[in-house]
Amino acid sequence: MERKGILAVMSGFSGAGKGTIVSRLLKDYDRYWVSVSMTTRPPRPGETDGVSYHFVTREAFEEIIAADGFLEYAEYQGNYYGTPKAPVLEHLAAGGDVILEIETVGAFKVREAFPEALLFYVVAPTGAELKRRLESRGTETEAQILGRLKKAAKEAEVINRYDYILVNDDLDEAVAACHSLIQREKTRAGRSLPLIARLREELEEITE
Amino acid sequence: MERKGILAVMSGFSGAGKGTIVSRLLKDYDRYWVSVSMTTRPPRPGETDGVSYHFVTREAFEEIIAADGFLEYAEYQGNYYGTPKAPVLEHLAAGGDVILEIETVGAFKVREAFPEALLFYVVAPTGAELKRRLESRGTETEAQILGRLKKAAKEAEVINRYDYILVNDDLDEAVAACHSLIQREKTRAGRSLPLIARLREELEEITE
Repeated sequence: MERKGILAVMSGFSGAGKGTIVSRLLKDYDRYWVSVSMTTRPPRPGETDGVSYHFVTREAFEEIIAADGFLEYAEYQGNYYGTPKAPVLEHLAAGGDVILEIETVGAFKVREAFPEALLFYVVAPTGAELKRRLESRGTETEAQILGRLKKAAKEAEVINRYDYILVNDDLDEAVAACHSLIQREKTRAGRSLPLIARLREELEEITE
Repeated sequence: MERKGILAVMSGFSGAGKGTIVSRLLKDYDRYWVSVSMTTRPPRPGETDGVSYHFVTREAFEEIIAADGFLEYAEYQGNYYGTPKAPVLEHLAAGGDVILEIETVGAFKVREAFPEALLFYVVAPTGAELKRRLESRGTETEAQILGRLKKAAKEAEVINRYDYILVNDDLDEAVAACHSLIQREKTRAGRSLPLIARLREELEEITE
């Protein structure tokens, strides 16, 4: 299946604003589609099936694994989480750009399966600002915030393997930069092969 | 020497508007510097040493070859043409972005020496439009134009090895796209290693 759209993977420090950037991309431009993950974890209050996640049984999830139906999947704390492959491929083939909001391990699995995927990692401008953002949410204990910051410090070791680091200092700028990087990717020569072939044919015809 | 700026290589079909795009980048933004090639060919009327080319003797050119002083060089019709290495490295180290306007063979040599260089290939939107542009210059015979179009058809075989194909349909758009691609390249994770290292240090300090 030809893949015309761009597959963009978004990861980032917890609290850096990855989710906000994705929401804004969806709101500001009408060409993005965000993959909904599948999980075996039970829904929490307020979560809607098909919006927050596709909630399925362990048996159903394992059948899809067996059928090679995930772009990437992992098990966290006894529950499966995965990105169903078919809807992603369908959107890309239709020319839409697809966003996956996933963790680093999943991101690198996607890179293996789709070497042409664009991997973005969202960071806050400074460590202190990341701490401030986590605290200002007001939803977590100090210990939980410290845990997130420790995870961020650990994760910083691998983010050089992403394609682009998005510094979320000014939100508007970060959204515009992300959109521009995804769209500019389409002028890559490797994606312009039909254009090159057409020009070549036209020039050969003219000079025959 | 650390290379902070971006090295952008511009090639393109003769008549596609490569020179115009480079002139506009220089005029519209103040962060570009265009390398002046060195040649052993004698100056033509109206050509100024140090502007059109650096005109040197064959002996001087070969001394620079021996000292590994060229980013790339080639011999065409008995004359040497080359890109002096030192000024390019100096501008990059100072944070400037450098543009080289060179042929495909030179472009691929630069890619070998600088894998991080960005290679742009400028095309007209169609073969017929390229022919029309060459004709409208009014400076060449029909046979010369046919020769240029044949060279373009031949060159089209290798331009998939460039990074980006710039379709010069609307000049303003092509200039803006080129500028944006060069500047966005700086957010590449591979170029953000100092930023990543700083964030990691800050996060480790906070969570100690």
